[in-house]
Amino acid sequence: MPCVNPNYSKLQAGYLFPEIARRTAAFLKENPGAEIIRMGIGDVVLPLPQAVCEAMKKAVEEMGTPEGFRGYGPEQGYGFLREAIAAEFALRGAEIDPSEIFVSDGSKCDTGNFQELFGADAKIAVTDPVYPVYVDTNVMAGRTGEANGVAYEGLVYLPTTAENGFAPELPKERVDVVYLCSPNNPTGAVMTRAQLKTWVDWAAENDATILFDAAYEAFIRDPEIPHSIFEIEGARKVAVEFRSFSKHAGFTGVRCGYVVVPKESPFHAMWNRRHCTKFNGVSYPVQRGAEAVFSPEGRRQCMANIDYYMENARLVRETLSGLGVKAHGGENGPYVWMETPGREPSWNFFDRLLREANVVGTPGAGFGACGEGYFRLSAFALRENVERALERVKRVL
Amino acid sequence: MPCVNPNYSKLQAGYLFPEIARRTAAFLKENPGAEIIRMGIGDVVLPLPQAVCEAMKKAVEEMGTPEGFRGYGPEQGYGFLREAIAAEFALRGAEIDPSEIFVSDGSKCDTGNFQELFGADAKIAVTDPVYPVYVDTNVMAGRTGEANGVAYEGLVYLPTTAENGFAPELPKERVDVVYLCSPNNPTGAVMTRAQLKTWVDWAAENDATILFDAAYEAFIRDPEIPHSIFEIEGARKVAVEFRSFSKHAGFTGVRCGYVVVPKESPFHAMWNRRHCTKFNGVSYPVQRGAEAVFSPEGRRQCMANIDYYMENARLVRETLSGLGVKAHGGENGPYVWMETPGREPSWNFFDRLLREANVVGTPGAGFGACGEGYFRLSAFALRENVERALERVKRVL
Repeated sequence: MPCVNPNYSKLQAGYLFPEIARRTAAFLKENPGAEIIRMGIGDVVLPLPQAVCEAMKKAVEEMGTPEGFRGYGPEQGYGFLREAIAAEFALRGAEIDPSEIFVSDGSKCDTGNFQELFGADAKIAVTDPVYPVYVDTNVMAGRTGEANGVAYEGLVYLPTTAENGFAPELPKERVDVVYLCSPNNPTGAVMTRAQLKTWVDWAAENDATILFDAAYEAFIRDPEIPHSIFEIEGARKVAVEFRSFSKHAGFTGVRCGYVVVPKESPFHAMWNRRHCTKFNGVSYPVQRGAEAVFSPEGRRQCMANIDYYMENARLVRETLSGLGVKAHGGENGPYVWMETPGREPSWNFFDRLLREANVVGTPGAGFGACGEGYFRLSAFALRENVERALERVKRVL
Repeated sequence: MPCVNPNYSKLQAGYLFPEIARRTAAFLKENPGAEIIRMGIGDVVLPLPQAVCEAMKKAVEEMGTPEGFRGYGPEQGYGFLREAIAAEFALRGAEIDPSEIFVSDGSKCDTGNFQELFGADAKIAVTDPVYPVYVDTNVMAGRTGEANGVAYEGLVYLPTTAENGFAPELPKERVDVVYLCSPNNPTGAVMTRAQLKTWVDWAAENDATILFDAAYEAFIRDPEIPHSIFEIEGARKVAVEFRSFSKHAGFTGVRCGYVVVPKESPFHAMWNRRHCTKFNGVSYPVQRGAEAVFSPEGRRQCMANIDYYMENARLVRETLSGLGVKAHGGENGPYVWMETPGREPSWNFFDRLLREANVVGTPGAGFGACGEGYFRLSAFALRENVERALERVKRVL
């Protein structure tokens, strides 16, 4: 037997979304006529904004000419995009230098890869429920023991449930790294300025690092909620922020994201080294498309799409609430986090919803033990499908 | 101090290419009028083939329509591309199933990431000289001790020099993983069928894994030289192959590559898990561009570019040979590996060539201790620049 990484065998079942796809495909094989409505994976459905398409096409055309061709770009991203992103932070009072921005092919990669910069014995905290990538990538890296049910030995889980208003408490034990996500996937909750400040102060006092996932910041409606952790004093020394064009601009199939690592962070130079050694930059046409997100037309088109999805979220939340279901989130983020009827086990509810309503959602248990009894419905769907799905869901509740 | 990965501090200086860029930029700052000719980094210069541009533009247009929009694709790549790639292998008698192909954003990422599947104590062998990514990524992962000069403790280096005809010998000690690259970067040497067979048999006998980097296979001219390790009997059990569209089709700025992991390999399921957990698929328009590489026009256009570069390689090799310089490679790969005058230290020769001839090449020492006294010249340049560079190089030799 070759010398394999032993940690992979600790991983539980499939990664959540492939497992959902597997169950859905199996159902469709048995019921070929079934008309499935997907509100599970959180994938956007509206076309790519025209400003983005135009910019990408122009860039492809450039690449076909001797004058316009570009080979390897800077690993960290082109200046034109890093500057556009920095300007965006400045609009909200966060001073970020373009050199602190590392453009990538998406936040899944970034949130998955960043843990490489920590020691093998770093103590990791995650909220529970949590985006599985944070957990699984630390399991693969050997920072956990075996799984005990859905929890891994050695990880610190911070429950975020209806009981604590979806606001995780500070860890009671020594922790080196904490992953925070606001607006939250999957709960849809947002962190207030005061809550973020508490975390930043805690990190500064404990030599800890906050990995802040702001992939959904564009969906925030409440003007008091910070879009970036760098709006909080002291964050530059202790935090790193992940952002994505996926949901903001419909880039799930185009692939672009970025990490902000301030120069004050010990991880700035390390991430730069990692980026230059293991990554070779994002496709030039994609970077031009991302730049166009910040143009006046791009902004308008992206915001129209976000408004559309947030109206979906409102419909889901209010319809469910009207049916007596406890539905959280959906006000500053695109996910509604509902409590299952009678706190039914969430994979049960998944299977029942699939079979009886032909609607695909995401079982809360897939996000961690504290997600049990919850179910995530995504606002990323066509209006008509949301309305039809809600009609069907009514029958199952 | 936060809990950082201690292995990063073992890394020597900058990664090779950023260091070249740094020295070049410093020279240009001092000599703003200097007209530099770059034959260093091995970046393509000819425009993207028109068939690729057309396919990408069409895909971007699709993405702008409700019917044609695509969000998340399969992490492993779309079926249309995996099938086109599998058909390409079949042309040379290598049976590869589409499900064994994992599409990625480039070979630098793939060759850098694949080591994650091995145990922390896996013994790694590399040829010397070698593409630095293989080494640096294992250093980052903690599989080496400190650097001793340019060599890391714990790594097994296999000298490949003019003295052994650039054919590395089998390791004398226990090794779990060996990285092989043919056509070789940087030496330009290729491995024969018999040599590859020896390595495959050795791997089978020793429970070892061959990571075979075939990024330059499209440049092979000799019909007897294998393009894939999977043309060799027994390879499916012990080898993994990396391929790229970067040099083959001018994709250095477009970003697409792939890994072939046969089902017989214990790493097939693991790589699939890694790919699904840490990666989210390649940009859809990029995958359509890659598919077009295999269309009749795409093939013709790519081959015309490869012919152009290989004529450059011939010019470099023959001009240098005519000047009494020992110039290796350049016959089945795009790199000429010259011996420096009097085996002058290669960074010296780099600086001298930069200052006196305003030509940028790659110092052999950047690829390992056995690269000292060598210098890599890339065939990826415009003909006119190759001719001018050779005129200037004459003056320095």
